[in-house]
Amino acid sequence: MLNNQVLISKAQIKFIRSLHDKKHRIEEGLFIVEGEKIIVELLNSPNNNIHSVFAVNEFIVRYANQLKRLSSEKVHLINEKELAQISNLQSPNLALVIVHFAATKAIEIQTVKKYILLDNIKDPGNLGTIIRTADWYGIDTIFCSPDCVESTNPKVIQATMGSFFRVNICEVSLSDLIEQHKSITTYGAVLEGENVYNTEFNEGGFLVIGSESHGISEELKTLIDKKIRIPSIGKAESLNASIATAILCSEWARQVNFKI
Amino acid sequence: MLNNQVLISKAQIKFIRSLHDKKHRIEEGLFIVEGEKIIVELLNSPNNNIHSVFAVNEFIVRYANQLKRLSSEKVHLINEKELAQISNLQSPNLALVIVHFAATKAIEIQTVKKYILLDNIKDPGNLGTIIRTADWYGIDTIFCSPDCVESTNPKVIQATMGSFFRVNICEVSLSDLIEQHKSITTYGAVLEGENVYNTEFNEGGFLVIGSESHGISEELKTLIDKKIRIPSIGKAESLNASIATAILCSEWARQVNFKI
Repeated sequence: MLNNQVLISKAQIKFIRSLHDKKHRIEEGLFIVEGEKIIVELLNSPNNNIHSVFAVNEFIVRYANQLKRLSSEKVHLINEKELAQISNLQSPNLALVIVHFAATKAIEIQTVKKYILLDNIKDPGNLGTIIRTADWYGIDTIFCSPDCVESTNPKVIQATMGSFFRVNICEVSLSDLIEQHKSITTYGAVLEGENVYNTEFNEGGFLVIGSESHGISEELKTLIDKKIRIPSIGKAESLNASIATAILCSEWARQVNFKI
Repeated sequence: MLNNQVLISKAQIKFIRSLHDKKHRIEEGLFIVEGEKIIVELLNSPNNNIHSVFAVNEFIVRYANQLKRLSSEKVHLINEKELAQISNLQSPNLALVIVHFAATKAIEIQTVKKYILLDNIKDPGNLGTIIRTADWYGIDTIFCSPDCVESTNPKVIQATMGSFFRVNICEVSLSDLIEQHKSITTYGAVLEGENVYNTEFNEGGFLVIGSESHGISEELKTLIDKKIRIPSIGKAESLNASIATAILCSEWARQVNFKI
């Protein structure tokens, strides 16, 4: 029965589908979150910025307690066919949530904190995975150069596995950022750098990761205080950008947070 | 002109397209490699197992020297339209290469060598990235449980960035493997394990990585000698499987290969 009822207007479908495009997401200040696990984490989080929930009956029943915390006009019952129309996924889940962009916070840079600076990271899976890894290592702010993939891209959100709403993503000029904070040590992953396992990390700092194909841009390289490299034993020419970020964050955390 | 000529038979197109399916790849013992960089690395490698090359004129001219080393009946000139018909990629490159599965080698397990054991890894991007990371850290053999994603899946090959032909991938029962090599230390990544930064690694051993959603299977857990975990400072629930593998390989290599 439910599957024949029209529960969502054509205008709503059009509006939601428009958010699949970066341009409209930015204009509206809204983006889409899908995947049961991520949505539940979002519902459980106190400041979740939820604009609206579109969910099939099964989801609404299963998460009635969590949904109760939202004002009722934000929650829309839809059927599976409608969900397929608005979803970005090949096999749509049980719900789709629209979320407001987090209000731009003034980030106060602290000497004792770690920050990741991403220079021209293009692959959404890489950015999402880096956000998830940052969240694991307690890094709560990532600075992205303006030519990075846009952080509300659905594939980014998917790959963060729920970490996207715990990590601030700020689009800035990385060179301006570094120049404005000369007291902060800037580490950068470059092939000609010092063996990271011999590098002594400060408690906090900037860690710059370059693009998948070109590494850190020449301009930015001149601003790096400590060039570091992950030494290789084998024959691979390079590491994936999210893998390199994780290995460097691990070594940094080992020295600073987990020293015996 | 070239684009209107038929350079490849319908039967050939059908045959190549059949290799997009796992079943046919296994039956034929052949798989597809795409991407200019990977193909060139393959052409440059001495034992490349190439069955045939299908390339547009631009590629054949550019890599004439490398292609000369193959017997001429292996190299087929095609046009771009034909390439699009046989390619797996959304934006097909300049060539597609068909490669024989490597002959199954008898792997002789050595106490001083590191091995990665993958239990039910389903995501092709994860498997490919793990192969690339293994190659970086000089790990030349990965054992996969039979329920892992198949290693000649095009998305696996793509993510390895050329490392797939330097790393042996063997499908085996992981529990049999561990039981048959009791003198080898088996490390396993589990949430309740010991902080990896406090773990003392032997020079060689087995490193078991569990599935993206369920971790290491209960049966296999009982066979692990040293349970290890990557400690967290932040709030992410888990790490991506390829990220966890990389962090553990890095720490292992740091202790064994890069100690000061």
